[in-house]
Amino acid sequence: MTTLPSLAVVGATGAVGTVLCDLLSSRRNVWGDVRLVASRRSAGRRCVVRGEELTVQELSPGVFDGVDVAMFDVPDEVAADWAPIAVKHGAVAVDNSTAFRLDRDVPLVVPEINPEQVRNRPRGIIASANCTTVAMIVAIAPLHYEYGLRELVLASYQSVSGTGKAGVDTLLDQLGRVTGDRDLGSRSGNVRRAVGDDLGPFPAPMALNVVPWAGGLRDAGWSSEELKLRNETRKILGLPDLKVSATCVRVPVITGHSVAVHAVFGTEVDAEGAREVLRGAPGVILVDDPANAEFPMPIDAVGTDPSWVGRIRRSLDDPRALDFFVTGDNLRKGAALNTAQIAELLAEELS
Amino acid sequence: MTTLPSLAVVGATGAVGTVLCDLLSSRRNVWGDVRLVASRRSAGRRCVVRGEELTVQELSPGVFDGVDVAMFDVPDEVAADWAPIAVKHGAVAVDNSTAFRLDRDVPLVVPEINPEQVRNRPRGIIASANCTTVAMIVAIAPLHYEYGLRELVLASYQSVSGTGKAGVDTLLDQLGRVTGDRDLGSRSGNVRRAVGDDLGPFPAPMALNVVPWAGGLRDAGWSSEELKLRNETRKILGLPDLKVSATCVRVPVITGHSVAVHAVFGTEVDAEGAREVLRGAPGVILVDDPANAEFPMPIDAVGTDPSWVGRIRRSLDDPRALDFFVTGDNLRKGAALNTAQIAELLAEELS
Repeated sequence: MTTLPSLAVVGATGAVGTVLCDLLSSRRNVWGDVRLVASRRSAGRRCVVRGEELTVQELSPGVFDGVDVAMFDVPDEVAADWAPIAVKHGAVAVDNSTAFRLDRDVPLVVPEINPEQVRNRPRGIIASANCTTVAMIVAIAPLHYEYGLRELVLASYQSVSGTGKAGVDTLLDQLGRVTGDRDLGSRSGNVRRAVGDDLGPFPAPMALNVVPWAGGLRDAGWSSEELKLRNETRKILGLPDLKVSATCVRVPVITGHSVAVHAVFGTEVDAEGAREVLRGAPGVILVDDPANAEFPMPIDAVGTDPSWVGRIRRSLDDPRALDFFVTGDNLRKGAALNTAQIAELLAEELS
Repeated sequence: MTTLPSLAVVGATGAVGTVLCDLLSSRRNVWGDVRLVASRRSAGRRCVVRGEELTVQELSPGVFDGVDVAMFDVPDEVAADWAPIAVKHGAVAVDNSTAFRLDRDVPLVVPEINPEQVRNRPRGIIASANCTTVAMIVAIAPLHYEYGLRELVLASYQSVSGTGKAGVDTLLDQLGRVTGDRDLGSRSGNVRRAVGDDLGPFPAPMALNVVPWAGGLRDAGWSSEELKLRNETRKILGLPDLKVSATCVRVPVITGHSVAVHAVFGTEVDAEGAREVLRGAPGVILVDDPANAEFPMPIDAVGTDPSWVGRIRRSLDDPRALDFFVTGDNLRKGAALNTAQIAELLAEELS
């Protein structure tokens, strides 16, 4: 008989945690005991995982006793406090927050790209990358190995579920208030008046709008989300000097982050060669037939595992540059799935 | 007494034509007789212009008799056939379609940038630029004069009214079908099923989605809209070798086209210097205070004349590169207003 490692899911009732529980039920089972953990507010709730109804326990040091792997899908400050506590109780922590991603002693892992990094964890913590970075980088990495990446210019189209359930509720409420009134779209301020003061987690109305802002304000006018794309891409690819300019924009989509990518390489590229590379790449699905309306879109990528890549074109001015469009489910590969994949690498190691 | 030139508005009942009629009523009156012209389907309709109710006449050679300036807001093929007929009847044609924009003998004019070109019209035709190009170029041009533009990497966020009234109806109908059902955003294909087969002028559902496609398919996977941005920017700025890579994406916004711009210049730039340049630039309004949620957005720019510019940042890797975000009303400055401004330059010349 084999003993399977035990797992704790911290933040099991959140937007990402909920998807994680679905994934635990649908993926090959590598886990023994599974515990669901959440804040006091959600403790006591019951969730079905692997066909078994579990009661959500309140986060406390004791919940980590006998746990081999603890997955954290909680706010940065909660992860910063509690991941080290889980480690002290003997667990390996897999954290989906920003808290440890740029820590030199914490590997930042996307299993399709740098799985070997999982074993290099001096603090006992492994970080899972930002949702927008993950969607894009599984497509960028194989092209980098083939052509040698030099520079990225990125523009994102990020869904509201990137801000959790509150973001989804806010968009749906706002759409309910504006739908049907065509005049709303014809005069400055009309949508603002119809939406009212409840902006939820956003700095502006999301219905019938795009908002060129995500995250917090950093130096020189950059948003934290834009700097994450730059710093995490550099760390995951091991390219500390990679040039990256990103503009992050929130769009009225429920789930599915997209990125328009302009990638400059060290050698000449061609679109068909890039398609060939991506056809064989793990975690990527190629959808690139505009004549038949086939291109990556959130409504198709949502609920699926891979990054959808298409609109691949070689720059008309630079034979070393490619333009393309990527869409991924920000709650699955962008968060829960990537975390689960990392945990499964640990399960293999610990079994 | 002064005699004022006469004007014909061809396509007066379309999405752009309707805005044009509003503008004729709200702007300084430089016109004598005004005639509204449309296809047989719309002929006979009555519209109020300058406080006066006019009957829309059916398009025919006769409607151009005695007309000094004829503005065309019609499909490419209609403009291609009828602008020369208007010229033969003695009018100067101002065309908002794609038909003549790249014709060497037709100036492509954005009045804030190259008004003098209006007098250089060997064919008697003047072209007004593409809506996305106009929104962006009034901000790009003054920065070019200051720093010397070398390269543009663009990603657009284009509203549905760019495809006319049918696009707006389609989005509003689709939103009516999907609103309120949060599950729609959680599984691949759910939105497609809810929206049904009526995609209107779009290749995919617009509700709760972004569609990385606008226009027709051209060589090597580029869309006509992406090539317009490249070719028209080069022609208007007089930079035939300017490097331009664009990805055009349609978003569920009624009116207001936005563009994420990465601009590389010949000399070093700084964000505050760029803001100073844009504060004084014609047709531009600077909204660049993220700490107070001030950035360019369609819900604010719609119904206004200028291009809204913000999120100005200097590249962290290249002191010659700026990233910023621009939003403009695609029916006003992006179409009707730019056409009206060109016509007003002619009115001045002809008076």
